[in-house]
Amino acid sequence: MNVTFSPGPTGLGTSSLRARRQPGEQPVRPIPGLYWHPVKEPEPAVVAEVDRRIKRWAVEEIDLFPPEWEEQFDAFGTGRYVCLTYPEAAGLDHLEAAAQLLVAENAVDDCYCEDHGGSPHGLGARLLMAHSSLERPHSVAPYEQQWQQKLDSEAPCRAYRASMEFFNRLTSDQVRDREVHDLARLHLGYLAEAAWSIDGVVPGIPEYLMARQYNSFRPCLSIVDAIDGYLFPADLHDHPKVQQVIALASLATTLINDLYSYTKELRSPRPHVNLPTVVQVQEGLPPDEAYGKAVTIHNDVMHRFEEEAAACTAELPGPLTARYLRGIADWLDGNHWWHATNTRRYTLPGFLPAQ
Amino acid sequence: MNVTFSPGPTGLGTSSLRARRQPGEQPVRPIPGLYWHPVKEPEPAVVAEVDRRIKRWAVEEIDLFPPEWEEQFDAFGTGRYVCLTYPEAAGLDHLEAAAQLLVAENAVDDCYCEDHGGSPHGLGARLLMAHSSLERPHSVAPYEQQWQQKLDSEAPCRAYRASMEFFNRLTSDQVRDREVHDLARLHLGYLAEAAWSIDGVVPGIPEYLMARQYNSFRPCLSIVDAIDGYLFPADLHDHPKVQQVIALASLATTLINDLYSYTKELRSPRPHVNLPTVVQVQEGLPPDEAYGKAVTIHNDVMHRFEEEAAACTAELPGPLTARYLRGIADWLDGNHWWHATNTRRYTLPGFLPAQ
Repeated sequence: MNVTFSPGPTGLGTSSLRARRQPGEQPVRPIPGLYWHPVKEPEPAVVAEVDRRIKRWAVEEIDLFPPEWEEQFDAFGTGRYVCLTYPEAAGLDHLEAAAQLLVAENAVDDCYCEDHGGSPHGLGARLLMAHSSLERPHSVAPYEQQWQQKLDSEAPCRAYRASMEFFNRLTSDQVRDREVHDLARLHLGYLAEAAWSIDGVVPGIPEYLMARQYNSFRPCLSIVDAIDGYLFPADLHDHPKVQQVIALASLATTLINDLYSYTKELRSPRPHVNLPTVVQVQEGLPPDEAYGKAVTIHNDVMHRFEEEAAACTAELPGPLTARYLRGIADWLDGNHWWHATNTRRYTLPGFLPAQ
Repeated sequence: MNVTFSPGPTGLGTSSLRARRQPGEQPVRPIPGLYWHPVKEPEPAVVAEVDRRIKRWAVEEIDLFPPEWEEQFDAFGTGRYVCLTYPEAAGLDHLEAAAQLLVAENAVDDCYCEDHGGSPHGLGARLLMAHSSLERPHSVAPYEQQWQQKLDSEAPCRAYRASMEFFNRLTSDQVRDREVHDLARLHLGYLAEAAWSIDGVVPGIPEYLMARQYNSFRPCLSIVDAIDGYLFPADLHDHPKVQQVIALASLATTLINDLYSYTKELRSPRPHVNLPTVVQVQEGLPPDEAYGKAVTIHNDVMHRFEEEAAACTAELPGPLTARYLRGIADWLDGNHWWHATNTRRYTLPGFLPAQ
């Protein structure tokens, strides 16, 4: 997903650099030319309560991070993120469930993939370990117990397990299974990008867009029914037309991240592929034109998402399909606004038209 | 899954070596001390018809392999494998669907992971490509079409897509989604083992057993309801108790493969981890004692599978649970017998008691 807690240029110990704009960068705001929809700002009291709960969970229940990561954890804005993306959430417990899953996903990304101890090397083994904490791994004594002890010793695995259990209590085994599947998709996406990183490969645009359908925010947006307090039934969710709409929405959310984190990722210790850099390399364009083309591709994906969502609602009439797809669209809009207003994480490239 | 078409010591061009026993090896037969159940030999006419259909599909519909692989394809015994493992199959179309999926899974393993062009290096990108052929990847023109052309140019991806479409026509979107999830699990298992292989890591026994719950025959055995012509509903399938039984069964099937392919894997161009070699390294045992301990662990897993399956049937009474778990048990027994009688692929180590 590439929305990790790490807000700064080179990871831990550089938090003083966070708010400092680099030369040639602009303050974050909606990207000129980007297709997006305005959202309502959430109630500050609700945001604060979700932040209080998620901090308590992470610190007291999971022991998720060392004290020196606390400022970064707070600066991420988890409460505002989930309040913006689930405006119809059924209640605080449901918002907390979404926040727990998001925090756990970020911890796995930070600690196993990215700059808080992660790396593309050996990632397949670490991600399978993490994945096994979402489901109970079963073997025989004493090995099953020994493996559980290993999982209990890993903070990201404790977070995955606890967040999935809390989520499961609010919903059903079916929806838990659906979410584990979407996290498997995410992990497969991480592993494709790790392979590119190790081999120094810049994928073609078609392959990159396919992979960003997997390494995407899908595990967040596909659970809008559960967070909003109803069940979108499996026979509808698994219908090819609905799957198409979810896939396009997932891709759109990730391209938003690519565009807003472009300058942040330029400063990363390891080169990051994102749509602007892929376009730049594959089409031999200068950075500003490549970025502009990436904005156009994002807009095309958004338009296609909206067209196919309308077609899907017509093909599968009934209140649940419309409600679910409305929730997905809300998630996209909230995700955009969180990125466009997160001044502590993001800046825009200097080549964009001035504000 | 590590049951590839490659039956010989060093891949293509060595088919004359296939039937030749190496010095110090014994003919294949049930492993002394192994816990297993006898099965009924399938009707030769049904086996032959499935073999005829799957050959026609692979050659005429998919163009799966070059002519020089034909002998290896035939020697695999796909028809007998599916007839042994799905004794209650609803009909020839259902057996063909299971055979298509098995052949496609073997093609992905052979061509992307193993010795027919595969490698642990860069595997994350190849497996995500393959995985995307199980679902329709969606983006926007012209990239979506370009990616589809790429998938159409890859024989294993053509096989994945066509087998999943054929399977979907016999069952439902829900069961297709379940199978895609199980294939995601398989691919995550492959990628953990690839990471170990690249880094020269021999995992501990607890980690190895966890990983073999993922890199396992689960995508074959979990579809017994669909192949037998009924639906095991999602609320039962996704119940934690059923998931536990499926996980134990999946692990047991893979340990059978570890034990029967031990001598074959010793001759592999790349070192293979399997339970006997993991036990040998981690416990410092000589090969015969390590192999014996691996047999004991397999037997423990089988006993636990049977105990938990009985507990599951009691906890979730009703004809469907009992029928599904009986189908899983049948799959395990058929899988064992296929391995124990496949004289063209397997031999046993010389240190076992003589026949």
